[in-house]
Amino acid sequence: MHTVDTLLHARWIVPIEPDDRVLTEHSLAVHEGRIVAVLPTHEARTQYRGTRELTLDRHALIPGLVNAHTHAAMSLLRGLADDLHLMDWLQHHIWPAEGRWVNEEFVHDGSELAIAEMLRGGTTCFNDMYFFPEVTARVAASAGMRATVGLILIDFPTAYADSPDDYLAKGLALHDEYRNHPLIRTAFAPHAPYSVSDAPLDRVRILADELDIPIHMHIHETAHEVDQAVAQSGQRPLARLNTLGVVSPALLAVHMTQLTDAEIALCAANGVSVLHCPESNLKLASGFCPVQKLLAAGINVALGTDGAASNNDLDMLGELRSAALLAKAVSGDASAVPAYQALRMATLNGAIALGLGDQIGSLVPGKLADICAVALDGIEATPLYHPLSQLVYASGRHQVSDVWVAGEHLLKDRALTRLDEVDILRRARQWQARIGAADSEANT
Amino acid sequence: MHTVDTLLHARWIVPIEPDDRVLTEHSLAVHEGRIVAVLPTHEARTQYRGTRELTLDRHALIPGLVNAHTHAAMSLLRGLADDLHLMDWLQHHIWPAEGRWVNEEFVHDGSELAIAEMLRGGTTCFNDMYFFPEVTARVAASAGMRATVGLILIDFPTAYADSPDDYLAKGLALHDEYRNHPLIRTAFAPHAPYSVSDAPLDRVRILADELDIPIHMHIHETAHEVDQAVAQSGQRPLARLNTLGVVSPALLAVHMTQLTDAEIALCAANGVSVLHCPESNLKLASGFCPVQKLLAAGINVALGTDGAASNNDLDMLGELRSAALLAKAVSGDASAVPAYQALRMATLNGAIALGLGDQIGSLVPGKLADICAVALDGIEATPLYHPLSQLVYASGRHQVSDVWVAGEHLLKDRALTRLDEVDILRRARQWQARIGAADSEANT
Repeated sequence: MHTVDTLLHARWIVPIEPDDRVLTEHSLAVHEGRIVAVLPTHEARTQYRGTRELTLDRHALIPGLVNAHTHAAMSLLRGLADDLHLMDWLQHHIWPAEGRWVNEEFVHDGSELAIAEMLRGGTTCFNDMYFFPEVTARVAASAGMRATVGLILIDFPTAYADSPDDYLAKGLALHDEYRNHPLIRTAFAPHAPYSVSDAPLDRVRILADELDIPIHMHIHETAHEVDQAVAQSGQRPLARLNTLGVVSPALLAVHMTQLTDAEIALCAANGVSVLHCPESNLKLASGFCPVQKLLAAGINVALGTDGAASNNDLDMLGELRSAALLAKAVSGDASAVPAYQALRMATLNGAIALGLGDQIGSLVPGKLADICAVALDGIEATPLYHPLSQLVYASGRHQVSDVWVAGEHLLKDRALTRLDEVDILRRARQWQARIGAADSEANT
Repeated sequence: MHTVDTLLHARWIVPIEPDDRVLTEHSLAVHEGRIVAVLPTHEARTQYRGTRELTLDRHALIPGLVNAHTHAAMSLLRGLADDLHLMDWLQHHIWPAEGRWVNEEFVHDGSELAIAEMLRGGTTCFNDMYFFPEVTARVAASAGMRATVGLILIDFPTAYADSPDDYLAKGLALHDEYRNHPLIRTAFAPHAPYSVSDAPLDRVRILADELDIPIHMHIHETAHEVDQAVAQSGQRPLARLNTLGVVSPALLAVHMTQLTDAEIALCAANGVSVLHCPESNLKLASGFCPVQKLLAAGINVALGTDGAASNNDLDMLGELRSAALLAKAVSGDASAVPAYQALRMATLNGAIALGLGDQIGSLVPGKLADICAVALDGIEATPLYHPLSQLVYASGRHQVSDVWVAGEHLLKDRALTRLDEVDILRRARQWQARIGAADSEANT
């Protein structure tokens, strides 16, 4: 009889590896932050004793969801402006609000709100891109949340940094600070082809290679972006990035709604990961990412919510459902992105993109215990013929009951254990009062 | 001081009429099942006393949602088979299951499960199409739910009826039975152009005209349907229906993913309502309904979930969000179907389609008190800049706290007041055991 820190007895376990597998009446043993065993409950009861044991007899355990692209702090701008053309939205609402309000306190409070929302929705890891990433890193670490924070880089000055060199210097200092942190990783985050010029991108390529970290970048988000690049330079953005040597296994290409077959082949040949944000692409009328073609080409496709200013939530269960539905319509094939694949995109594929494929993203012994429990009973989830189908097509994030990151129980029967929900709400409402008043004033 | 049955003090009221209006700190007075006043709370407190008063200080009141197209009883087949090509899904799963299991008991238990789910999600009225509609009518009436039940008609025999004449005779008897019922209405429901031939359709047209009830029909759901009709008859289905005189204000055309500009003009000129089911169309890869073009042409577009076998839920808040997001992407215009319009499609437009536009669908004095309260606080709904945006883009159906139909409080702080949830679940699980075993056996 082995004693482990935590022993979870579940009605179902969806390990993600192997594909399309559901284990019934299985248990999961966690010790020192890692999964040590997944086995039938009747065997678990004779082989393991848990310091903490939990019976989840109406639940499916899935790997914690990986939100592969977000701007966490922008949760403070949730719903500030909607239903607008992209440039109207950016120029008259988002950029003025960011210019006026974004500072360390904004990033602190927005990141904490976002982390609370993500944990309550089953997300255990997020890949972020925003200003003051050292603040997001600190908040995530203190919340016990796993994160890859983006070392943001953009040609123009902001409250955070005043030149490409300054962005990179700050980014490198942040990378050094978290070099051996158990939860926090870094990635270079040059904003987009149109906002970062060749010289800094060249430095990013060299540094990413040296440090062995990803390059996280918005690419081919809209037809307008591609058309404008072609008009200005004669080159599509992806072609320019390829010339710069950035199209590589390190590249995490966000959005990618405008892709020729040759570009898909280029990304496949070079091991690029695509970070697909279906709801943001819909809401901003950006275009349709050809997910089914990317998967067929062997490209690793992960899922992200994008920021709450454009989505307007950080709901990965909702996002993976949208991804599964939309892929069928876009490909014209009702069998495209079946339920298990949508869940894999939201877990293991995100982990692989972030270079964490051997650490998280599936429930197998040896991996870190990043786990989400989803209750599958009640009127909305009955009858239940196939747990995977129910998880993807008929579940809401409010059914997430418990979440663990590296074995720590961060959401316990819907309650956050480390974060102070009341205080987070109080601060978010203070921002709301300030930001809302200024936005109304500017737009009347 | 007037005494009314119910007085609701709300943080926000979204009356739907006029467009894009949000009333803050308003109250709604209900008497004898109807809305008698909507006025500022400080005035309401001096003018009205409620036999029951409820303060909803974190909530928005919206009209009860109108699910304009569903097959309620099919909730018992939720998730039985997914990610399959339409014909594989129908021929190997849905039709065998229906052939074997659909009887009065199935329709009773499935309709009750569906009504429970719909009420818990803020839906107060549904437009149904299924076999044994008299059972669905009885269940809805007994649940206090508003419904338009379809007098189904199909060329081939089923357990319900053995010929078009038999379907119509049963339908007419049902229509007579509910002629003066306060909650239950009827509509003719010829299944689809490919499953109903000219002679019975001709009778439907004459009878619908005599009885002044709608004709509810799946039309142009897929390209395959249109192509097959053209191959067989040289005519697109809508052209045939027009020849038969069915394209009229009575027509409620479901799906409509395949439409030429001339067909849109034809529908607009003839006052057709389109019942849009975005999630079903995505999941079955049916195509994209050109919602923005339909609205621009002045067509009344309402929203439906379709049946839970294809969606896989009856979640109108989710559906209206999908409708708003998808319309932007399909039209390439981020300002298409703004939040207020998505809510209107899910309320007033549904009411108009069903001939109930003067009775339900908006919160104005004189209308029936079909009301839904949505809690807009908590981590996922903060900050809140615009209640309409939050309702559409950042709310889930679990935030629906209270629902009234004709003034009766059917959902009270998340609990169903008339329906026995435990018993509904018990029966649904019995069906699950029977249906699931037979489906597995047939498909292994």
